[in-house]
Amino acid sequence: MYSHSTSIRVRYAETDKMNYVYYGNYATYYEVGRVETMRALGITYAAMEDEMHVMMPVMNASFEYLRPVFYDELLRVETKIPILPEREILFESAIYNEKNKVVNKGLIRLCFVSTLTKKRISIPQVMLDRLITYYE
Amino acid sequence: MYSHSTSIRVRYAETDKMNYVYYGNYATYYEVGRVETMRALGITYAAMEDEMHVMMPVMNASFEYLRPVFYDELLRVETKIPILPEREILFESAIYNEKNKVVNKGLIRLCFVSTLTKKRISIPQVMLDRLITYYE
Amino acid sequence: MYSHSTSIRVRYAETDKMNYVYYGNYATYYEVGRVETMRALGITYAAMEDEMHVMMPVMNASFEYLRPVFYDELLRVETKIPILPEREILFESAIYNEKNKVVNKGLIRLCFVSTLTKKRISIPQVMLDRLITYYE
Amino acid sequence: MYSHSTSIRVRYAETDKMNYVYYGNYATYYEVGRVETMRALGITYAAMEDEMHVMMPVMNASFEYLRPVFYDELLRVETKIPILPEREILFESAIYNEKNKVVNKGLIRLCFVSTLTKKRISIPQVMLDRLITYYE
Repeated sequence: MYSHSTSIRVRYAETDKMNYVYYGNYATYYEVGRVETMRALGITYAAMEDEMHVMMPVMNASFEYLRPVFYDELLRVETKIPILPEREILFESAIYNEKNKVVNKGLIRLCFVSTLTKKRISIPQVMLDRLITYYE
Repeated sequence: MYSHSTSIRVRYAETDKMNYVYYGNYATYYEVGRVETMRALGITYAAMEDEMHVMMPVMNASFEYLRPVFYDELLRVETKIPILPEREILFESAIYNEKNKVVNKGLIRLCFVSTLTKKRISIPQVMLDRLITYYE
Repeated sequence: MYSHSTSIRVRYAETDKMNYVYYGNYATYYEVGRVETMRALGITYAAMEDEMHVMMPVMNASFEYLRPVFYDELLRVETKIPILPEREILFESAIYNEKNKVVNKGLIRLCFVSTLTKKRISIPQVMLDRLITYYE
Repeated sequence: MYSHSTSIRVRYAETDKMNYVYYGNYATYYEVGRVETMRALGITYAAMEDEMHVMMPVMNASFEYLRPVFYDELLRVETKIPILPEREILFESAIYNEKNKVVNKGLIRLCFVSTLTKKRISIPQVMLDRLITYYE
């Protein structure tokens, strides 16, 4: 299974009056985790959209808020791809705080869409080639 | 069961380069739906935090992205409270576009926390009193 | 001079741990003000981009934070176009709280760019036609 | 004069349908620049609010949008404190893209407010002590 770790520092903009990170902002943290996971594999999502004409819209997402997260905390986002993707790709993610406590869990499923035809396609071959060695 | 409907116009700030509403911004739409649902019941969430000293952090949330949503669309957020709340409150929500197609579904569970003790509590009595007639 | 008034309710997502609206979110409030001002003139910004192939990027913006704004406040955004636009358009805006106190002032200058050539152009004729009667 | 440099990677969440970074998100980039500038001085803004009971609300801010910024670009935020602060603090910032072209300029003035009394105060002595050697 392929997995990757990214650091994110909580910004003031991301807090709310409860003093916590606003619950919608975890979606952004997991996005950063996914993008850096792909970059570590040798694929930039920017090139995927702009050069390979493939975009990856989210199909469903679920979040578990286990502990509050506060301003300026340095988070570790762990991103896994538990199953070799075909028509869709599942990211299983978790966020840990500086005390190494899990603060949030996320499961996010995306599909592959051609930016030219707007039709669903399978995972691009180049991405599959990079991933396949991790699933044998 | 108590349910309520709210209108939201998609802002430019909420779109992303895919031309869609960014997937994390549905959390905000559902938040507005919940707050207006409570206001229609006679309870403002602002007063709940500032006067009743009760805050409602999110415990878990799941989102289904059924159709893309575009800039300037006028959305209808339907918010239901399917079960009379006790220790936690479940909001079952859906968003419809101008063609009355469901574009997103959300299930969000929150709990009640005293802002003074930071401990979990049951639903405030005033909120329960407003809701109870809908569940007989 | 053309002017227009829009109402905006402060969302929880827009607050920060200082308990105020985060200073970057006024840009969104003024964007909503501009878009509704154009809609009142009979021009939707969505149609401008998608049908007329004209986009309006911001050239410069300044904001004065006169009073804090709190969660759930119902704001009034006043948007004026002080000068008949040609190559650029200036929006002079102010936000008032429920006590009718001015809480923020904004000056935002945008230009007109063809989405096809990415070159700067003058104000679209249809928009000029709608505005010109207010500046005689 | 004290100055500091920080790197920020543009997130998907920060783009808009124009394909650019949304104009309101520069406020967040400059906030990160300010906070890292203070951290490099030995002062965390988090400790300032939570331990020293001083908050720094924004009084005014202006932004110049010189070049568009795109998804996934790695930006360099240069943050300067041009004048030794007393009752207020001015941050003069600029953002450069990977080609070392200036893309945005920002001037942001903040004041110091006691979180206990909500009254304006002068710059905390510890912060002044750290800064003063740079202005002789």
